[in-house]
Formats: sequence, structure tokens, C-alpha cells
Amino acid sequence: MSIPVPKGFLLAGVHCRIKSDPRKQDLTLIMSEAPATAAGVYTRNVVHGAPVALDRQRTPSNRVRVVVVNSGNANACTGERGMQDARRMAALAAAACGAEEDQALVMSTGVIGECLPMDKIEQGITAAAVKLGSNEPSLVSAACGMMTTDTVHKLAGRTVKLADCEIKITGLAKGAAMIGPNMATMLAIVLTDAPLAPPTAQTALSEAVDESFNCISVEGHTSTSDTVLLLANGAAGGEALADDDLTAFGGALDGLCVELAKTIAADAEGATHLITIEVAGCADRQSARQIAKTVANSVLVKTAIAGADPNWGRIVSAAGYAGVPFDPGAVSLHVNHAPLYRHGIPVAFDAGAVSDSIRNNRDTLIRLELGEGGAAARFWTADLTAEYVRLNADYHT
Amino acid sequence: MSIPVPKGFLLAGVHCRIKSDPRKQDLTLIMSEAPATAAGVYTRNVVHGAPVALDRQRTPSNRVRVVVVNSGNANACTGERGMQDARRMAALAAAACGAEEDQALVMSTGVIGECLPMDKIEQGITAAAVKLGSNEPSLVSAACGMMTTDTVHKLAGRTVKLADCEIKITGLAKGAAMIGPNMATMLAIVLTDAPLAPPTAQTALSEAVDESFNCISVEGHTSTSDTVLLLANGAAGGEALADDDLTAFGGALDGLCVELAKTIAADAEGATHLITIEVAGCADRQSARQIAKTVANSVLVKTAIAGADPNWGRIVSAAGYAGVPFDPGAVSLHVNHAPLYRHGIPVAFDAGAVSDSIRNNRDTLIRLELGEGGAAARFWTADLTAEYVRLNADYHT
Repeated sequence: MSIPVPKGFLLAGVHCRIKSDPRKQDLTLIMSEAPATAAGVYTRNVVHGAPVALDRQRTPSNRVRVVVVNSGNANACTGERGMQDARRMAALAAAACGAEEDQALVMSTGVIGECLPMDKIEQGITAAAVKLGSNEPSLVSAACGMMTTDTVHKLAGRTVKLADCEIKITGLAKGAAMIGPNMATMLAIVLTDAPLAPPTAQTALSEAVDESFNCISVEGHTSTSDTVLLLANGAAGGEALADDDLTAFGGALDGLCVELAKTIAADAEGATHLITIEVAGCADRQSARQIAKTVANSVLVKTAIAGADPNWGRIVSAAGYAGVPFDPGAVSLHVNHAPLYRHGIPVAFDAGAVSDSIRNNRDTLIRLELGEGGAAARFWTADLTAEYVRLNADYHT
Repeated sequence: MSIPVPKGFLLAGVHCRIKSDPRKQDLTLIMSEAPATAAGVYTRNVVHGAPVALDRQRTPSNRVRVVVVNSGNANACTGERGMQDARRMAALAAAACGAEEDQALVMSTGVIGECLPMDKIEQGITAAAVKLGSNEPSLVSAACGMMTTDTVHKLAGRTVKLADCEIKITGLAKGAAMIGPNMATMLAIVLTDAPLAPPTAQTALSEAVDESFNCISVEGHTSTSDTVLLLANGAAGGEALADDDLTAFGGALDGLCVELAKTIAADAEGATHLITIEVAGCADRQSARQIAKTVANSVLVKTAIAGADPNWGRIVSAAGYAGVPFDPGAVSLHVNHAPLYRHGIPVAFDAGAVSDSIRNNRDTLIRLELGEGGAAARFWTADLTAEYVRLNADYHT
């Protein structure tokens, strides 16, 4: 399935020797031909990298033209040095694209503990600027330039018919997996040729992230560098979106972010299952979300799914300690549509059949229903396998 | 090291066929010759077992004489049946000890999904009543009768010299590990011949539990049955403890509970390390505790220690998402007394030597210092190994 590049954007991914394997891209450059509206959503971790601090200063904006990303080495140097490097990386990318210094945003991901290799990054930016393109290979190389321990590059696209024109939305992401001495980082960049005012873009992105990237949990670890950016350059033409057009755009953006978020959860280290947790019948959305998140973070639920074990006790008891009051006698649970627990009482079920349905499918659906109200929420996570532990415990990889 | 039984208590552990292995005790009976002051601290999980509900009704008390525990089968049946069985089990134990029905407390732990085998429990209580004794083998058999997936029975004892007499405190515990379809349950019973008034006993127990059993995290899963009971029968003589005597008792009780809590964390399934997390320099205790707990629950920190990886990034970033504001530039970190991170900046350290110190010791000490104030807290956890996942993911064990 081909994913198109929205009008007016050029992309490239190159190898500039930050990663040792010469077949792996480690620098991505994205340029908008015209100044674009830009919005950002960032990690809430108290400890965060310099790129997050810099991008936070520069968004929302109506004039961003460049995003530069390197992988293989995070910019986790605290203090002045980290900020100097982030500013310089942005300035080099801006210069290579003929933009002003403060029109560039920056992201870094990879091993921590080392300062950025600025000479390699400078060479990489020069090389990428020459290679910028708008075809699918350019898009794929740009997605690859963001990867760290991802096993696949992550792309999603949407084309939306509006009243007067057609717009495109394309997202690139990398996963949140941690390995060896790497720092977990989830990065995503969403490009669109739709015309958007900065406050509208920020609101649309914040809402989309809240229902997608903020609803995945691989290990419950909030990274210090998580960043999602939206660039809207208006190349599709027309006035800034409003009313029905904006609603249509928002719906497409939400769907695209959910698709990317699920690819991240599914690509968790060692994972054999993508687990969707649906919680319904709650008094309010926050309660539903808190329960879904608590189940998603339960190591015992995640290992049970790895073992194809329809262990209702672990799921119901995880819901019970989410910090949300509810009547245990009104709780029902389905796993892969099979009822395991109804109105507070375990029901007789064919454990072998449910176990087989978990074992033989990549997707597992856990659905909890409370009897408290009409609010619902979803969360996605991956199962926890011995392979995950091997990947994360082996110091000398 | 011999652990004495406080005066006026008799104990027994027997096998009554709840567990299939005839060498394993599965029922414990504890009797106080005189009515004892009793206090309890219980799980905060919204979903909880019938024994928790019953004991909650019966504590604090000044007239408890019996505690009965079975392992191998939890009483996780919700609704009337669970409560009927808990009441009946307590009544049978009370009758066997010549006590009144409401003078007995009850605990059940083990596999969930099945109602209690009341016929076996009745036979077990009869057999245990005959075997009641106050020597060390009685104590050990009682500790064994509470075990589920524990690899060792868990006992601790203290003798405290007070102004006019000597008192003894002895604790029995079982771990919180979950395996197969088991429900995690942490149970502990503390017996003392000290004289205590019920409100004093409840306060002393609540304070001790808050700094011990509430500061261990094996998988962050709050069980539905966690229960800690304190029985004080006053057999050592004298008036109800107050002033300096009460302070001395409280200190000994705190230490005993910490010792038992650490044995539970250390005996986590597949664990190769007991990890102590000390957080100091916080604005208040709650902040310190929240950070320590967040680090203790980090799957990435736990796998790093399993791999002998002195991964400061995972530890510092876990602190950063604990929900407590602090200045990242003032954070320092030691692992096994080696400085890894000082005032917000990673320091050069001999990674091989620190890795060796982790690998070659059963205990790992993680010490975080913030620059926010004078409050501190501790938490204990175990590392997360591939063996843990194997034990928790394998459905057909």
C-alpha cells in the first residue's frame, strides 16, 4: 500500500556514521517549501532532553520549515552543552534548507551518556539536503532515519476529501522500546498539506495524541524525549480549515495517530501480541482511562497473555487497584469476545478454546465492563515475553 | 538462629489435601490461650476476598483467640458463598480451640476460581487442633501452612527488654508472588505477648506496615487478599504498654516487619537480586516514597539489575515520571555506593566494576538524592528475570 507525501514537503534519510551499520539510516531531514503551521506535544517527564526544551520554545508556530532528526545517539547531555548542540543542529538544518535558524525543529534518539557527534551530524545534514525528495523511497528513508530498536519503519497515511479540495496527512513514527543503555523515546512527525491556524493545529494534535500515543504503554516508562510534531503547510490551498472540514481533518488525524500508536505497541521488544484493553460502563472517561492504563501496565496481565492464559483474576484485580471506586459485583469481562466473568462472578468457559484464540492471533482484546455509567476508554500494550527480558537485561549487547 | 514463640500462643501447620503434594502443609491454626488484642491492615483493592471483609469487621478487638489460614485455594468466590465459607471456617477453628465463633480470624490464599473445599478444611482444623504446640517445629509448620509459591518459609523474631519485663514478638509471612492462575496474596501474622490496648495495637501495626509491607513491590499488583494481623495477648504480664515501653515495642515491631517484607521481595519468582531503593533529599516523605515506588515498579530498572547493568538513565528517568516536581540539575545517584550521576550530570565511572558489584551480590542498593529538602523513604523490590516470565506466562503449570 503506497503512502503519499503531502504537497510541498520534501524528505530524506541518510547514513552519516552515527550507527555503526552502514546500511542503516541515522539522520532524517524534512523540509516544507513554504512556512508551515507547527504544533508539538512533548514528554511530561521532569527530566527531559535539550531537543524537547528547544522545540517547546518554538511551537506552536506559523513559520516552521525544517525538522531534523538523528538516531543512534540521544541528546541527553544536561546543562549548556546539550542545548548548544540542539540549537546548532537546528541551525545547520535550517541553513541547508535555506530557512532561518529558528524555523527548524529538532529531535534526537538513541544511546545516552554520549554528547552528540556534531561533525557526523553536520555531514549528514549536508548529504540529506542533496537527497530531499517527495516520492515514496524518500518517505521510507526518512522513516528509517528515525529508527533505533524498531524492527520495522512506521508510516501511515490518509487522504481526506474536503468541501473544496483534497488534503493528505502522512505520519512517520519510531517506537518507544528501550534496549541496552538506550533511552526510550517515542517520536512521531505528522505532515499535512491542509491549511491550519496554529491554535487549531495545536488543539487537533493534542486531542489526537491524547487518544493514541498517550494510550499506549510498553513498559509504563515515560521517556525523557517523547515528541510528536504536526506540520501543516497549506499547500493543498484554501483558507484555514474550520467547521465540517476541520472535523473531517480531526477525525482523519485521530485515526492516523491511533494507527501509528498501535504499530509502536505491536513492535515492542520481544512482543508476540498487541493487546487492546477496552473499558466501558464507567462514570467518566478519566476513570475508564485509569483502569485501562492500570491493566495495560500490569506485568502479570502481560505475562498471562504471553502464555495464552485467559487469567481473569489478574485482569479484574488489576482493575481493582486502579484507584477508581466501583462495585465489584457489577464487573464483566470478555477476552477475545468470550465471556469470562459476569456481574462479579466467574463464568464457566472453555479455557482451552480461549487460550487457543489468544495463542493463534496476534491481537488480543480484553474488554471490561463496569456498571457505573456510560464512559469508555481504550489502551494498547504488548505482551511481556522472556525475549523482552533477555533484550533488556543483557548489558553487553 | 532460633525464633521463640511468645508466651501463651500455640501453633500448628498440617496437610489436609488442599495441596496435592502430601509433604506440604496447607492449613495453619494459631491459638492464644487468653483473649488477645487484635489489629489488622488489609488490601485497598476494590475487589477483595471474603476473609478480608470478615476480618475487617472483627478488628480492632480485645478478645481474639484464634487465627486460621489455608493455602492452596483462595476464597475468591464473590457473593454469599464466599462469605458463608469464611464464617464457617472461622467458626470451626473457634470451636476446635474452645473459643466463641466471633473470636476467630481467617485467611485463605492460593488458586482462585474454585470455592473452598470445606470438608478438607474441617478435617485440617481438627487435625491441627490436636497438634498445637509452642516449640520451634510448631512455629515452622505454621509458617509452612501459609505458603503458596514461596520457596522458603518466612519467620522473624524479636525479644525486647522493657522496664519491668521482657516481651517477644514473632512474625510469620508468605510472599506476594503470583503464578499460574494464582492470585497474589501477601499474608503476615505477628504475635506478641506484650500487653497492648486495641487502639494502640492498631496504630502501631498501621505505622509498621506503612514502612514495610507497603514499601515492597514485586510486580506493582495490589492483591485482593493482602492481610497483616497483630495479636497481643499480654501473657508477658503488666499493664498495657505506654511511653518508653511502647516506643521500644514500636521500634522492634517496625524492624520485624521490615525484615519480613524484605524476605518477601527477595523471594519473588525468579529473582536473583533484592533491590533496595533509597530516595533522600525530598521536600516531604510522600514525594520520596512516590519516587522510590516508581523506580521500584520500573520494569526497565528491574531488568537492568537482572542484567547487572548500572543503567543510570533508566533510574533517573523513572524518577522523572513519578509525578513529583524536582530540579533535574540537582539529582545525584549511587548504585552500590558508586557515584553514577551527580548534580544532574553523568559522572565517569568504571561500568565493569559496578556491573560486577551488582552481579556478585544478592543485594543491590540504588540511592537517589534530590536537592529539595530533608525527607527520605525506602522501597524494596526484586529484579525481573526471564525465569519470572517463564513462571508467569506458562499456562499449563
